Amino acid sequence: MRLDRTVAEVAALLGGHVEGPPELRLAELTSLEDAGPADLAPVFPTRAAAAAAAALAATRAGALLAGTRASLPDLPAGAPPRSVIRVENAELALDALVSALVPADEPPPPGVHPSAVLAEGVSLAADVSVGPHVVLGRGVVIGARTRLLPGVWVGDHAVIGADGVLHPHVVIGSRCRLGDRVTVYASTVIGREGFGFRQDKDGRHTRIPQRGIVVLGDDVEIGALCAIDRARFTETRIGNGCKIDNLVQIAHNVQLGEHCALAAQTGIAGSTILGRRVLMGGQCAISNGLRIGDGAVVGGNSGVMDDLEPGIYVTGYPALAHKAWARDVVLVRRLGELVARVRALEKALADGGTAQGGSGQAP
Amino acid sequence: MRLDRTVAEVAALLGGHVEGPPELRLAELTSLEDAGPADLAPVFPTRAAAAAAAALAATRAGALLAGTRASLPDLPAGAPPRSVIRVENAELALDALVSALVPADEPPPPGVHPSAVLAEGVSLAADVSVGPHVVLGRGVVIGARTRLLPGVWVGDHAVIGADGVLHPHVVIGSRCRLGDRVTVYASTVIGREGFGFRQDKDGRHTRIPQRGIVVLGDDVEIGALCAIDRARFTETRIGNGCKIDNLVQIAHNVQLGEHCALAAQTGIAGSTILGRRVLMGGQCAISNGLRIGDGAVVGGNSGVMDDLEPGIYVTGYPALAHKAWARDVVLVRRLGELVARVRALEKALADGGTAQGGSGQAP
Amino acid sequence: MRLDRTVAEVAALLGGHVEGPPELRLAELTSLEDAGPADLAPVFPTRAAAAAAAALAATRAGALLAGTRASLPDLPAGAPPRSVIRVENAELALDALVSALVPADEPPPPGVHPSAVLAEGVSLAADVSVGPHVVLGRGVVIGARTRLLPGVWVGDHAVIGADGVLHPHVVIGSRCRLGDRVTVYASTVIGREGFGFRQDKDGRHTRIPQRGIVVLGDDVEIGALCAIDRARFTETRIGNGCKIDNLVQIAHNVQLGEHCALAAQTGIAGSTILGRRVLMGGQCAISNGLRIGDGAVVGGNSGVMDDLEPGIYVTGYPALAHKAWARDVVLVRRLGELVARVRALEKALADGGTAQGGSGQAP
Repeated sequence: MRLDRTVAEVAALLGGHVEGPPELRLAELTSLEDAGPADLAPVFPTRAAAAAAAALAATRAGALLAGTRASLPDLPAGAPPRSVIRVENAELALDALVSALVPADEPPPPGVHPSAVLAEGVSLAADVSVGPHVVLGRGVVIGARTRLLPGVWVGDHAVIGADGVLHPHVVIGSRCRLGDRVTVYASTVIGREGFGFRQDKDGRHTRIPQRGIVVLGDDVEIGALCAIDRARFTETRIGNGCKIDNLVQIAHNVQLGEHCALAAQTGIAGSTILGRRVLMGGQCAISNGLRIGDGAVVGGNSGVMDDLEPGIYVTGYPALAHKAWARDVVLVRRLGELVARVRALEKALADGGTAQGGSGQAP
Repeated sequence: MRLDRTVAEVAALLGGHVEGPPELRLAELTSLEDAGPADLAPVFPTRAAAAAAAALAATRAGALLAGTRASLPDLPAGAPPRSVIRVENAELALDALVSALVPADEPPPPGVHPSAVLAEGVSLAADVSVGPHVVLGRGVVIGARTRLLPGVWVGDHAVIGADGVLHPHVVIGSRCRLGDRVTVYASTVIGREGFGFRQDKDGRHTRIPQRGIVVLGDDVEIGALCAIDRARFTETRIGNGCKIDNLVQIAHNVQLGEHCALAAQTGIAGSTILGRRVLMGGQCAISNGLRIGDGAVVGGNSGVMDDLEPGIYVTGYPALAHKAWARDVVLVRRLGELVARVRALEKALADGGTAQGGSGQAP
Repeated sequence: MRLDRTVAEVAALLGGHVEGPPELRLAELTSLEDAGPADLAPVFPTRAAAAAAAALAATRAGALLAGTRASLPDLPAGAPPRSVIRVENAELALDALVSALVPADEPPPPGVHPSAVLAEGVSLAADVSVGPHVVLGRGVVIGARTRLLPGVWVGDHAVIGADGVLHPHVVIGSRCRLGDRVTVYASTVIGREGFGFRQDKDGRHTRIPQRGIVVLGDDVEIGALCAIDRARFTETRIGNGCKIDNLVQIAHNVQLGEHCALAAQTGIAGSTILGRRVLMGGQCAISNGLRIGDGAVVGGNSGVMDDLEPGIYVTGYPALAHKAWARDVVLVRRLGELVARVRALEKALADGGTAQGGSGQAP
């Protein structure tokens, strides 16, 4: 990221102080690994300790951004001097620097693009932006300052709150409701009919009508290419403050409490109810009809097949308390050794002698 | 779901009879959990027994929709009377009520929107609807009454049957063929070139041309955000009556027999052939080149790495007959105990004594 | 695939020679399974031996396309004669035949469709094609002969190389950069803000600004419905020659070396770095912050939770060296037997007798 400022200027911007030469003109803000003598790299307190130490020892960065308490290695003898910008909180300072260097994408201007197609009864609040090729159904309501980027489609009588952003090609089904300050990234599909069928004795599937809706609370963010299906006759609900990554599947009648976060490619099957502040890693598969307690944490790639109590941390497939799963993984890895021990016991007993196993490496 | 009818009116609509007061005006059709004294909630015979009983015991619903043979708990002494609408089949009655309360989305009118772009030789049968921003390639054929919603793209010489619905932004590749009464939900991509490459000794990949097609049978439903790739030189085939959920991947040359159903995020690798009426849960991964027998059932999140015989029910990764997998899960969970028993045997033998293990909790 | 040529004509086209009757007029190029007496079917040297032999023994194909060294079964006595077109390399000959029979989709003509919307400062090189309903942001640069299919959206100041193809509804975020000869299939989303939040003590998530970019090298192919997120302040990088299948998730700050190939539905979590020529099967889940060595191979449906050394082949969850995982799978499958052996030992020791286990089927 283009920087083009001196060390002293960056320090002033961030309210930090400088150790070492302040006059160096910095070309780029980049990583410890990529930085050269004219670049600035941040030292993250949150990065895994060993990897961070190695990167720090090897970096050629001319300047570092670091917390006041971060300990930095001595430079090798004869190395050129390095500038360090010390700040109270390196993570927050980095955010401020990034935001200063590259502003958010410029919002489209308010107004309705002439290529947009609005059905009768659409209601647009102040300063709404309706981009090219957007299509809005009958009676759609859009709150103040919300921006609909190109190709967005909104079904009849859907209601979208204020200060939202729907990225290109987002689809919002009829009658669904989005709160205020909701961001939905590109090509996400909200409000598809749920996947519900009745199978007859010949194996044919007949659709069960799914005419409920999806409700997203305030301050919700949904990634790109997600599918959130409408309920059968009630509401699929995403609570206030929930954050969902890309390619996530939320089936019909699922409910998420406030402030949940789901990483990419996770799927929640029908009617499962998550409490508040539930966290899930990527590519988790959650069975239908479960209750997931407040604050439960599901490690990446886990398959949850039973209810989870509040605050538990689970991993694996089927998912278990993390420590139990990690122990089982180790025990399975040592199964060959266990088989050998049993074989030794069998031989010893057959020989009428004593066991040879039970060595120090036994679990 | 807004109801605004009396108990008697709903009973008449569904051909049911009323137990308790018939004159209550019902506000909403909702779940046992959400219903209040002015609401109607259905009692599902298919819901898990324990959860259903608990919800029923705790509901505040003023009226219930239940099957004639459903047993309902007595109300607590002093509780206000509750109305029950008894019907022959509560599931079917609920479908009828849902459909009566909320009709399906109003279809777009027949005709071609002026913003649509049609190449030469497009053939539209009677009453086709081509929505805004649709793009149709050369020689595309669309059957009677089929609706193409905004932003649909159809490649050259593709053929789409009658009475279909392609939701916004669906992509149908050149020459692919869709049967009658096919629904494809938003942003699904049908007919991408299959993922086939030849790797040279330097690791570079060269594309293997994939110029076959995708064929969807009649009465097929494909969810949102699915990818169904075209065959190398034959056909990727989805049989009549198949139902596919969101975010599903169907690779080149895959074949599905009639009436299969695949839940969300499942992926089928290249050239695998499914028989008829195969059912798969969500997020299954099926290897390439397999044969999956008629009526096989694959539990959610399973990884199938071998052919499956007809009618088998498998789960796990690698997938096994469900009972065998469930047994293995239990045995792994008891591995720590088994290790302790082996250690006790080793000690007993070393001591020249007798074993202490083999207790009642042994598997 | 329609053929409509004689055996001799096909042989001439492919530079092969004919065994058996050359004058047969071939109707279709199809598979051994589907072919009839008037059809041509290829005999793949790469197909699994047993399945290929069975298909070959059962085929009704009137003509075969086979390598010069492929051994073919004798026809049953009294069967009509079969033509065989012998070629040096059956795979390459098949590619040539497929390409001759069905040319690639006809490219759209150069020029800007009147329904496209271009912001100020867009730069289009020679013979660029900008299709219907495309939207290009400020200062976007498109290289020579690149084709933007309908509904593509490109953010401000993004740069796209020459000879590329962006399929319908592709989204390219602001400032992202694509090399030459890049193909991106339909509805893929490149350059979304990475999924990064800071959680406060009340569980609320605050966005960490993600203002870096995505860089795709030359000769990259990205499937349909993929998400590749932009870096926090540097670059998410996809190396030259990488090939990515459908529905793949690449998180912020991930880097892929040259010539990697990732099959469908795989996900790579944040900041993980892949070396060159890494291969991954479908639906793999790779944890964040890992280093995956050059030439590592990850079997389908695996979950990688640790760094991988160059050249290793891993499978499973958590992923292990393939042989170790395969051995563990077998050992788990035999756990019931091991438990029985331990029980027999316990009984023998309790009885003061000798063990009955240790039979021939023991692992």
